[in-house]
Amino acid sequence: MSDHPFVFEPIGRVESCFKEKFGIPRQSGLAPHASARIHLPLTPFRDAISGLEEFSHLWVVFIFHANRENAVEIRWKPRVRPPRLGGSRKVGVLASRSPHRPNPIGLSAVKLERVETTRTEVILHISGADLLDGTPVLDIKPYIPYADSIPRARSGWAKSEKQQLLQVSFSAAANAQLKMLDPRGTRHLRALVRELIAQDPRPAFQRSERKSQQYAFRLCELDVHWSLEGGKVHVFDLRSR
Amino acid sequence: MSDHPFVFEPIGRVESCFKEKFGIPRQSGLAPHASARIHLPLTPFRDAISGLEEFSHLWVVFIFHANRENAVEIRWKPRVRPPRLGGSRKVGVLASRSPHRPNPIGLSAVKLERVETTRTEVILHISGADLLDGTPVLDIKPYIPYADSIPRARSGWAKSEKQQLLQVSFSAAANAQLKMLDPRGTRHLRALVRELIAQDPRPAFQRSERKSQQYAFRLCELDVHWSLEGGKVHVFDLRSR
Repeated sequence: MSDHPFVFEPIGRVESCFKEKFGIPRQSGLAPHASARIHLPLTPFRDAISGLEEFSHLWVVFIFHANRENAVEIRWKPRVRPPRLGGSRKVGVLASRSPHRPNPIGLSAVKLERVETTRTEVILHISGADLLDGTPVLDIKPYIPYADSIPRARSGWAKSEKQQLLQVSFSAAANAQLKMLDPRGTRHLRALVRELIAQDPRPAFQRSERKSQQYAFRLCELDVHWSLEGGKVHVFDLRSR
Repeated sequence: MSDHPFVFEPIGRVESCFKEKFGIPRQSGLAPHASARIHLPLTPFRDAISGLEEFSHLWVVFIFHANRENAVEIRWKPRVRPPRLGGSRKVGVLASRSPHRPNPIGLSAVKLERVETTRTEVILHISGADLLDGTPVLDIKPYIPYADSIPRARSGWAKSEKQQLLQVSFSAAANAQLKMLDPRGTRHLRALVRELIAQDPRPAFQRSERKSQQYAFRLCELDVHWSLEGGKVHVFDLRSR
Protein backbone atom coordinates (compact mmCIF):
# COMPACT_ATOMS: atom_id res chain seq x y z
CA MET A 1 0.00 0.00 0.00
CA SER A 2 3.04 2.23 0.11
CA ASP A 3 3.01 2.90 -3.62
CA HIS A 4 1.19 6.15 -3.29
CA PRO A 5 1.75 8.42 -0.30
CA PHE A 6 -0.32 11.60 -0.09
CA VAL A 7 0.96 14.87 1.28
CA PHE A 8 -1.39 17.27 3.05
CA GLU A 9 -0.82 20.72 4.38
CA PRO A 10 -3.01 22.08 7.16
CA ILE A 11 -5.42 24.81 6.08
CA GLY A 12 -5.61 26.23 9.60
CA ARG A 13 -5.08 25.76 13.31
CA VAL A 14 -7.30 25.29 16.35
CA GLU A 15 -7.05 27.68 19.28
CA SER A 16 -8.61 26.14 22.37
CA CYS A 17 -8.40 26.07 26.15
CA PHE A 18 -7.22 22.47 26.04
CA LYS A 19 -3.47 22.86 26.43
CA GLU A 20 -2.84 19.22 27.32
CA LYS A 21 -4.55 15.93 26.58
CA PHE A 22 -5.72 15.29 30.16
CA GLY A 23 -9.21 16.70 30.58
CA ILE A 24 -10.20 16.85 26.90
CA PRO A 25 -13.62 15.30 26.24
CA ARG A 26 -13.23 11.93 24.55
CA GLN A 27 -15.64 12.79 21.74
CA SER A 28 -17.00 15.96 20.25
CA GLY A 29 -20.35 17.15 21.59
CA LEU A 30 -19.85 15.72 25.10
CA ALA A 31 -18.93 19.13 26.55
CA PRO A 32 -21.22 21.66 24.84
CA HIS A 33 -19.52 24.53 26.70
CA ALA A 34 -16.10 23.66 25.25
CA SER A 35 -15.62 26.47 22.77
CA ALA A 36 -12.71 26.82 20.40
CA ARG A 37 -11.67 28.80 17.37
CA ILE A 38 -10.39 27.65 14.01
CA HIS A 39 -8.06 30.17 12.39
CA LEU A 40 -7.81 30.19 8.60
CA PRO A 41 -5.92 32.67 6.39
CA LEU A 42 -8.29 35.32 5.01
CA THR A 43 -7.17 34.51 1.46
CA PRO A 44 -8.47 32.21 0.07
CA PHE A 45 -10.67 31.03 2.93
CA ARG A 46 -13.06 33.97 3.18
CA ASP A 47 -14.38 32.81 -0.18
CA ALA A 48 -13.93 29.10 0.54
CA ILE A 49 -16.23 29.21 3.60
CA SER A 50 -18.96 31.39 2.11
CA GLY A 51 -22.32 29.82 2.90
CA LEU A 52 -20.92 27.79 5.80
CA GLU A 53 -22.83 29.95 8.30
CA GLU A 54 -26.07 28.45 6.93
CA PHE A 55 -25.11 25.19 8.64
CA SER A 56 -25.47 24.69 12.39
CA HIS A 57 -22.74 22.04 12.60
CA LEU A 58 -19.57 21.15 10.78
CA TRP A 59 -16.99 18.40 10.54
CA VAL A 60 -13.45 19.18 11.48
CA VAL A 61 -10.95 16.79 9.87
CA PHE A 62 -7.71 17.22 11.78
CA ILE A 63 -4.35 15.74 12.74
CA PHE A 64 -3.79 14.13 16.13
CA HIS A 65 -0.58 16.13 16.37
CA ALA A 66 0.13 15.47 20.05
CA ASN A 67 0.95 11.87 19.15
CA ARG A 68 4.36 13.20 18.24
CA GLU A 69 5.52 13.92 21.74
CA ASN A 70 9.17 14.90 22.16
CA ALA A 71 9.56 14.72 18.40
CA VAL A 72 9.33 10.94 18.60
CA GLU A 73 6.30 9.62 16.82
CA ILE A 74 4.38 7.12 18.91
CA ARG A 75 3.69 4.16 16.69
CA TRP A 76 0.21 2.73 16.53
CA LYS A 77 -0.62 -0.72 17.79
CA PRO A 78 -3.31 -2.93 16.22
CA ARG A 79 -5.21 -3.25 19.51
CA VAL A 80 -6.02 -0.59 22.10
CA ARG A 81 -7.83 -0.38 25.44
CA PRO A 82 -10.64 2.20 25.10
CA PRO A 83 -11.20 4.26 28.28
CA ARG A 84 -14.92 3.44 28.10
CA LEU A 85 -14.17 -0.20 28.70
CA GLY A 86 -12.23 0.69 31.84
CA GLY A 87 -9.04 -0.66 30.33
CA SER A 88 -10.33 -4.18 30.77
CA ARG A 89 -10.73 -5.13 27.14
CA LYS A 90 -8.73 -4.62 24.00
CA VAL A 91 -10.36 -3.81 20.67
CA GLY A 92 -8.90 -3.15 17.23
CA VAL A 93 -7.69 0.42 16.83
CA LEU A 94 -9.93 0.81 13.74
CA ALA A 95 -12.89 -0.27 15.90
CA SER A 96 -12.05 2.64 18.22
CA ARG A 97 -11.62 6.40 17.97
CA SER A 98 -8.16 6.27 19.54
CA PRO A 99 -5.75 8.97 18.33
CA HIS A 100 -2.99 6.39 17.82
CA ARG A 101 -4.14 5.26 14.37
CA PRO A 102 -2.28 4.13 11.25
CA ASN A 103 -3.01 7.57 9.77
CA PRO A 104 -3.54 9.91 12.74
CA ILE A 105 -6.56 11.70 11.30
CA GLY A 106 -9.30 12.86 13.66
CA LEU A 107 -12.93 13.65 12.96
CA SER A 108 -15.16 15.83 15.13
CA ALA A 109 -18.69 17.12 14.66
CA VAL A 110 -18.88 20.56 16.30
CA LYS A 111 -21.40 23.37 16.49
CA LEU A 112 -20.66 26.47 14.44
CA GLU A 113 -21.43 29.46 16.67
CA ARG A 114 -20.33 32.27 14.39
CA VAL A 115 -17.85 33.33 11.76
CA GLU A 116 -15.52 36.26 12.44
CA THR A 117 -13.44 38.05 9.84
CA THR A 118 -10.35 40.02 10.77
CA ARG A 119 -7.87 41.87 8.59
CA THR A 120 -5.84 38.68 8.00
CA GLU A 121 -7.99 35.75 9.10
CA VAL A 122 -11.31 34.01 9.04
CA ILE A 123 -12.10 32.64 12.50
CA LEU A 124 -14.71 29.93 12.97
CA HIS A 125 -16.07 30.01 16.52
CA ILE A 126 -17.16 26.50 17.46
CA SER A 127 -18.47 24.68 20.53
CA GLY A 128 -18.70 21.08 21.66
CA ALA A 129 -15.06 20.77 20.70
CA ASP A 130 -12.64 18.06 21.80
CA LEU A 131 -9.64 19.64 20.12
CA LEU A 132 -6.22 20.28 21.61
CA ASP A 133 -4.81 23.79 21.27
CA GLY A 134 -2.69 24.04 18.11
CA THR A 135 -4.40 21.15 16.30
CA PRO A 136 -3.67 21.31 12.55
CA VAL A 137 -6.90 21.32 10.53
CA LEU A 138 -6.95 19.51 7.19
CA ASP A 139 -10.54 20.08 6.13
CA ILE A 140 -13.85 21.62 7.14
CA LYS A 141 -17.07 20.11 5.81
CA PRO A 142 -20.69 21.07 6.40
CA TYR A 143 -22.62 18.54 8.52
CA ILE A 144 -25.39 17.21 6.26
CA PRO A 145 -27.95 15.34 8.39
CA TYR A 146 -29.50 13.29 5.56
CA ALA A 147 -26.11 11.68 4.88
CA ASP A 148 -24.24 12.01 8.18
CA SER A 149 -26.88 11.41 10.85
CA ILE A 150 -27.72 7.76 11.52
CA PRO A 151 -29.44 7.86 14.91
CA ARG A 152 -30.21 4.15 14.89
CA ALA A 153 -26.71 2.99 14.07
CA ARG A 154 -25.79 0.14 16.35
CA SER A 155 -22.63 0.74 18.27
CA GLY A 156 -20.74 -2.08 19.86
CA TRP A 157 -18.72 -1.43 22.93
CA ALA A 158 -19.37 2.34 22.71
CA LYS A 159 -22.96 2.18 23.86
CA SER A 160 -25.34 4.74 22.52
CA GLU A 161 -26.37 5.96 25.95
CA LYS A 162 -24.04 8.53 27.35
CA GLN A 163 -21.47 7.31 29.79
CA GLN A 164 -22.54 7.56 33.42
CA LEU A 165 -21.52 10.96 34.70
CA LEU A 166 -19.78 11.59 38.01
CA GLN A 167 -21.33 13.91 40.58
CA VAL A 168 -19.38 17.17 40.77
CA SER A 169 -19.33 19.62 43.68
CA PHE A 170 -17.38 22.87 44.06
CA SER A 171 -15.71 24.25 47.21
CA ALA A 172 -16.66 27.75 48.35
CA ALA A 173 -13.19 28.89 47.29
CA ALA A 174 -13.57 27.34 43.83
CA ASN A 175 -16.99 28.96 43.41
CA ALA A 176 -15.59 32.36 44.34
CA GLN A 177 -12.69 31.91 41.92
CA LEU A 178 -15.03 30.84 39.13
CA LYS A 179 -17.24 33.86 39.70
CA MET A 180 -14.27 36.18 39.51
CA LEU A 181 -12.90 34.49 36.39
CA ASP A 182 -16.14 34.59 34.44
CA PRO A 183 -16.21 38.16 33.19
CA ARG A 184 -19.72 37.94 31.78
CA GLY A 185 -21.23 36.27 34.86
CA THR A 186 -22.50 33.55 32.55
CA ARG A 187 -21.36 30.62 34.67
CA HIS A 188 -19.99 29.35 31.38
CA LEU A 189 -16.62 28.39 32.85
CA ARG A 190 -18.27 26.62 35.78
CA ALA A 191 -20.48 24.62 33.42
CA LEU A 192 -17.45 23.69 31.33
CA VAL A 193 -15.43 22.51 34.35
CA ARG A 194 -18.41 20.41 35.43
CA GLU A 195 -18.85 18.86 31.97
CA LEU A 196 -15.20 17.97 31.68
CA ILE A 197 -14.78 16.39 35.09
CA ALA A 198 -18.18 14.63 35.21
CA GLN A 199 -16.99 12.47 32.32
CA ASP A 200 -14.11 11.14 34.37
CA PRO A 201 -11.03 12.19 32.44
CA ARG A 202 -8.80 9.71 34.27
CA PRO A 203 -6.99 7.18 32.16
CA ALA A 204 -8.51 3.73 32.33
CA PHE A 205 -5.73 2.25 34.46
CA GLN A 206 -6.40 4.75 37.25
CA ARG A 207 -10.10 4.08 37.51
CA SER A 208 -9.85 1.04 39.66
CA GLU A 209 -8.05 2.97 42.39
CA ARG A 210 -10.17 3.05 45.49
CA LYS A 211 -8.56 5.56 47.75
CA SER A 212 -9.09 9.29 47.43
CA GLN A 213 -6.91 10.85 44.77
CA GLN A 214 -6.11 14.39 43.76
CA TYR A 215 -5.85 15.48 40.14
CA ALA A 216 -5.33 18.67 38.19
CA PHE A 217 -5.68 19.67 34.58
CA ARG A 218 -4.96 22.80 32.70
CA LEU A 219 -7.81 24.77 31.20
CA CYS A 220 -6.90 27.99 29.38
CA GLU A 221 -4.59 29.77 31.80
CA LEU A 222 -5.93 27.94 34.84
CA ASP A 223 -5.05 24.82 36.75
CA VAL A 224 -8.18 23.08 37.97
CA HIS A 225 -7.59 20.95 41.07
CA TRP A 226 -10.06 18.26 42.01
CA SER A 227 -10.31 15.14 44.08
CA LEU A 228 -12.27 11.98 43.66
CA GLU A 229 -13.59 9.80 46.43
CA GLY A 230 -16.39 7.26 46.37
CA GLY A 231 -17.37 8.16 42.81
CA LYS A 232 -17.86 11.85 43.69
CA VAL A 233 -15.72 14.68 42.43
CA HIS A 234 -14.88 17.77 44.45
CA VAL A 235 -13.36 20.77 42.70
CA PHE A 236 -11.39 22.41 45.48
CA ASP A 237 -9.17 24.97 43.81
CA LEU A 238 -8.53 26.91 40.60
CA ARG A 239 -5.20 28.64 40.18
CA SER A 240 -4.02 31.03 37.52
CA ARG A 241 -0.78 29.87 36.03
CA MET B 1 0.43 26.98 6.96
CA SER B 2 3.01 25.17 4.88
CA ASP B 3 5.42 24.71 7.78
CA HIS B 4 4.26 21.23 8.52
CA PRO B 5 3.09 18.91 5.74
CA PHE B 6 1.80 15.49 6.73
CA VAL B 7 2.36 12.35 4.71
CA PHE B 8 -0.23 9.59 4.69
CA GLU B 9 -0.17 6.18 3.13
CA PRO B 10 -3.42 4.42 2.27
CA ILE B 11 -4.22 1.45 4.50
CA GLY B 12 -6.37 -0.15 1.80
CA ARG B 13 -8.35 0.22 -1.40
CA VAL B 14 -12.01 0.25 -2.38
CA GLU B 15 -13.35 -2.22 -4.92
CA SER B 16 -16.67 -1.05 -6.28
CA CYS B 17 -18.90 -1.13 -9.36
CA PHE B 18 -18.40 2.60 -9.83
CA LYS B 19 -15.71 2.70 -12.49
CA GLU B 20 -16.25 6.33 -13.42
CA LYS B 21 -17.57 9.40 -11.62
CA PHE B 22 -20.77 9.71 -13.65
CA GLY B 23 -23.54 7.81 -11.86
CA ILE B 24 -21.97 7.73 -8.38
CA PRO B 25 -24.40 8.84 -5.66
CA ARG B 26 -23.50 12.30 -4.44
CA GLN B 27 -23.49 11.27 -0.78
CA SER B 28 -23.16 8.02 1.11
CA GLY B 29 -26.43 6.34 2.10
CA LEU B 30 -28.41 7.65 -0.89
CA ALA B 31 -28.17 4.33 -2.75
CA PRO B 32 -28.53 1.60 -0.10
CA HIS B 33 -27.99 -1.10 -2.75
CA ALA B 34 -24.58 0.27 -3.71
CA SER B 35 -22.29 -2.33 -2.22
CA ALA B 36 -18.52 -2.19 -2.20
CA ARG B 37 -15.55 -3.85 -0.58
CA ILE B 38 -12.62 -2.39 1.29
CA HIS B 39 -9.49 -4.50 0.98
CA LEU B 40 -6.91 -4.32 3.78
CA PRO B 41 -3.76 -6.42 4.18
CA LEU B 42 -4.35 -9.28 6.63
CA THR B 43 -1.40 -8.18 8.73
CA PRO B 44 -1.83 -6.02 10.73
CA PHE B 45 -5.46 -5.27 9.95
CA ARG B 46 -7.07 -8.49 11.11
CA ASP B 47 -6.14 -7.37 14.60
CA ALA B 48 -6.73 -3.68 13.93
CA ILE B 49 -10.40 -4.21 12.99
CA SER B 50 -11.28 -6.69 15.74
CA GLY B 51 -14.56 -5.61 17.30
CA LEU B 52 -15.58 -3.55 14.26
CA GLU B 53 -18.32 -6.05 13.40
CA GLU B 54 -20.17 -4.93 16.56
CA PHE B 55 -20.92 -1.67 14.79
CA SER B 56 -23.60 -1.39 12.12
CA HIS B 57 -21.98 1.59 10.36
CA LEU B 58 -18.54 2.98 9.87
CA TRP B 59 -16.77 6.05 8.55
CA VAL B 60 -14.53 5.72 5.56
CA VAL B 61 -11.91 8.47 5.36
CA PHE B 62 -10.55 8.40 1.84
CA ILE B 63 -8.78 10.26 -0.93
CA PHE B 64 -10.66 11.78 -3.86
CA HIS B 65 -8.09 10.21 -6.14
CA ALA B 66 -9.92 10.79 -9.42
CA ASN B 67 -9.19 14.50 -9.07
CA ARG B 68 -5.81 13.67 -10.54
CA GLU B 69 -7.02 12.91 -14.01
CA ASN B 70 -4.35 12.46 -16.67
CA ALA B 71 -1.72 12.89 -13.97
CA VAL B 72 -2.57 16.58 -13.86
CA GLU B 73 -3.93 17.57 -10.51
CA ILE B 74 -7.04 19.70 -10.81
CA ARG B 75 -6.57 22.64 -8.49
CA TRP B 76 -9.33 23.57 -6.14
CA LYS B 77 -11.24 26.80 -6.43
CA PRO B 78 -12.62 28.70 -3.44
CA ARG B 79 -16.18 28.62 -4.78
CA VAL B 80 -18.07 25.75 -6.42
CA ARG B 81 -21.51 25.13 -7.91
CA PRO B 82 -23.13 22.24 -6.01
CA PRO B 83 -25.28 19.99 -8.24
CA ARG B 84 -28.14 20.31 -5.74
CA LEU B 85 -28.41 23.97 -6.51
CA GLY B 86 -28.75 23.20 -10.20
CA GLY B 87 -25.53 25.04 -10.98
CA SER B 88 -27.27 28.34 -10.34
CA ARG B 89 -25.44 29.38 -7.19
CA LYS B 90 -21.87 29.28 -6.02
CA VAL B 91 -20.94 28.44 -2.44
CA GLY B 92 -17.59 28.15 -0.70
CA VAL B 93 -15.94 24.79 -1.32
CA LEU B 94 -15.68 24.25 2.47
CA ALA B 95 -19.44 24.83 2.69
CA SER B 96 -19.85 21.95 0.22
CA ARG B 97 -18.88 18.29 -0.03
CA SER B 98 -17.20 18.81 -3.41
CA PRO B 99 -14.23 16.50 -4.11
CA HIS B 100 -12.14 19.46 -5.31
CA ARG B 101 -11.03 20.59 -1.84
CA PRO B 102 -7.79 22.10 -0.53
CA ASN B 103 -6.98 18.66 0.92
CA PRO B 104 -8.93 16.13 -1.19
CA ILE B 105 -10.11 14.04 1.77
CA GLY B 106 -13.54 12.42 1.58
CA LEU B 107 -15.79 11.18 4.35
CA SER B 108 -18.57 8.62 3.94
CA ALA B 109 -20.82 6.90 6.46
CA VAL B 110 -21.53 3.40 5.15
CA LYS B 111 -23.20 0.27 6.44
CA LEU B 112 -20.95 -2.60 7.42
CA GLU B 113 -22.54 -5.76 6.03
CA ARG B 114 -19.90 -8.29 7.01
CA VAL B 115 -16.20 -8.91 7.45
CA GLU B 116 -14.45 -11.52 5.32
CA THR B 117 -10.99 -12.89 5.96
CA THR B 118 -8.92 -14.48 3.20
CA ARG B 119 -5.41 -15.86 3.27
CA THR B 120 -3.92 -12.43 2.61
CA GLU B 121 -6.62 -9.86 3.23
CA VAL B 122 -9.38 -8.59 5.43
CA ILE B 123 -12.33 -7.47 3.30
CA LEU B 124 -15.00 -5.17 4.68
CA HIS B 125 -18.26 -5.60 2.78
CA ILE B 126 -20.14 -2.32 2.88
CA SER B 127 -23.31 -0.83 1.40
CA GLY B 128 -24.66 2.65 0.83
CA ALA B 129 -21.29 3.49 -0.68
CA ASP B 130 -20.50 6.44 -2.92
CA LEU B 131 -16.92 5.36 -3.58
CA LEU B 132 -15.15 5.11 -6.90
CA ASP B 133 -13.38 1.83 -7.67
CA GLY B 134 -9.75 2.02 -6.54
CA THR B 135 -10.32 4.73 -3.94
CA PRO B 136 -7.39 4.84 -1.48
CA VAL B 137 -8.61 4.50 2.11
CA LEU B 138 -6.80 6.44 4.83
CA ASP B 139 -8.83 5.45 7.87
CA ILE B 140 -11.81 3.44 9.08
CA LYS B 141 -13.64 4.58 12.21
CA PRO B 142 -16.68 3.10 13.97
CA TYR B 143 -19.81 5.26 13.65
CA ILE B 144 -20.70 6.32 17.19
CA PRO B 145 -24.24 7.73 17.23
CA TYR B 146 -23.95 9.68 20.48
CA ALA B 147 -21.12 11.75 18.99
CA ASP B 148 -21.73 11.53 15.23
CA SER B 149 -25.50 11.63 14.83
CA ILE B 150 -27.03 15.11 15.01
CA PRO B 151 -30.47 14.62 13.41
CA ARG B 152 -31.55 18.20 14.10
CA ALA B 153 -28.50 19.85 12.62
CA ARG B 154 -29.59 22.68 10.40
CA SER B 155 -28.27 22.43 6.87
CA GLY B 156 -28.19 25.39 4.60
CA TRP B 157 -28.46 24.86 0.90
CA ALA B 158 -28.31 21.05 1.31
CA LYS B 159 -31.83 20.68 2.64
CA SER B 160 -32.50 17.91 5.08
CA GLU B 161 -35.25 16.45 2.96
CA LYS B 162 -33.99 14.15 0.31
CA GLN B 163 -33.72 15.54 -3.15
CA GLN B 164 -36.76 14.99 -5.30
CA LEU B 165 -36.33 11.70 -7.10
CA LEU B 166 -37.01 11.14 -10.78
CA GLN B 167 -39.49 8.51 -11.92
CA VAL B 168 -37.68 5.54 -13.44
CA SER B 169 -39.14 2.99 -15.84
CA PHE B 170 -37.45 0.01 -17.52
CA SER B 171 -37.94 -1.25 -21.06
CA ALA B 172 -38.93 -4.90 -21.54
CA ALA B 173 -35.46 -5.54 -22.94
CA ALA B 174 -33.79 -3.89 -19.94
CA ASN B 175 -35.93 -5.92 -17.55
CA ALA B 176 -35.00 -9.15 -19.31
CA GLN B 177 -31.31 -8.21 -19.23
CA LEU B 178 -31.49 -7.33 -15.53
CA LYS B 179 -33.15 -10.63 -14.74
CA MET B 180 -30.44 -12.52 -16.57
CA LEU B 181 -27.66 -10.54 -14.93
CA ASP B 182 -28.90 -10.97 -11.38
CA PRO B 183 -27.71 -14.46 -10.53
CA ARG B 184 -29.55 -14.63 -7.22
CA GLY B 185 -32.85 -13.31 -8.59
CA THR B 186 -32.76 -10.70 -5.87
CA ARG B 187 -33.60 -7.75 -8.09
CA HIS B 188 -30.65 -6.17 -6.33
CA LEU B 189 -29.12 -4.84 -9.54
CA ARG B 190 -32.44 -3.44 -10.71
CA ALA B 191 -32.93 -1.65 -7.38
CA LEU B 192 -29.42 -0.23 -7.61
CA VAL B 193 -29.91 1.08 -11.16
CA ARG B 194 -33.15 2.70 -10.04
CA GLU B 195 -31.52 4.35 -7.01
CA LEU B 196 -28.66 5.72 -9.04
CA ILE B 197 -30.70 7.18 -11.86
CA ALA B 198 -33.60 8.46 -9.75
CA GLN B 199 -31.16 10.89 -8.15
CA ASP B 200 -30.42 12.50 -11.49
CA PRO B 201 -26.71 11.95 -11.97
CA ARG B 202 -26.48 14.61 -14.68
CA PRO B 203 -24.10 17.46 -14.05
CA ALA B 204 -25.84 20.66 -13.07
CA PHE B 205 -25.22 22.40 -16.38
CA GLN B 206 -27.14 19.69 -18.27
CA ARG B 207 -30.25 19.86 -16.12
CA SER B 208 -31.80 22.81 -17.80
CA GLU B 209 -31.89 21.00 -21.13
CA ARG B 210 -35.44 20.48 -22.19
CA LYS B 211 -35.33 18.11 -25.11
CA SER B 212 -35.00 14.38 -24.72
CA GLN B 213 -31.44 13.26 -24.09
CA GLN B 214 -29.72 9.90 -23.97
CA TYR B 215 -27.13 9.03 -21.36
CA ALA B 216 -25.08 6.02 -20.30
CA PHE B 217 -22.95 5.17 -17.33
CA ARG B 218 -20.80 2.25 -16.46
CA LEU B 219 -21.78 0.00 -13.59
CA CYS B 220 -19.52 -2.99 -12.88
CA GLU B 221 -19.04 -4.55 -16.32
CA LEU B 222 -22.19 -3.04 -17.75
CA ASP B 223 -23.12 0.06 -19.64
CA VAL B 224 -26.52 1.33 -18.57
CA HIS B 225 -28.30 3.35 -21.24
CA TRP B 226 -31.14 5.63 -20.28
CA SER B 227 -33.04 8.59 -21.59
CA LEU B 228 -34.71 11.48 -19.89
CA GLU B 229 -37.74 13.34 -21.11
CA GLY B 230 -40.19 15.49 -19.21
CA GLY B 231 -38.61 14.62 -15.85
CA LYS B 232 -39.04 10.88 -16.42
CA VAL B 233 -36.24 8.41 -16.90
CA HIS B 234 -36.46 5.38 -19.14
CA VAL B 235 -33.78 2.68 -18.90
CA PHE B 236 -33.80 1.19 -22.35
CA ASP B 237 -30.70 -0.99 -22.55
CA LEU B 238 -27.95 -2.66 -20.57
CA ARG B 239 -24.90 -3.91 -22.40
CA SER B 240 -22.01 -5.99 -21.17
CA ARG B 241 -18.72 -4.31 -21.98
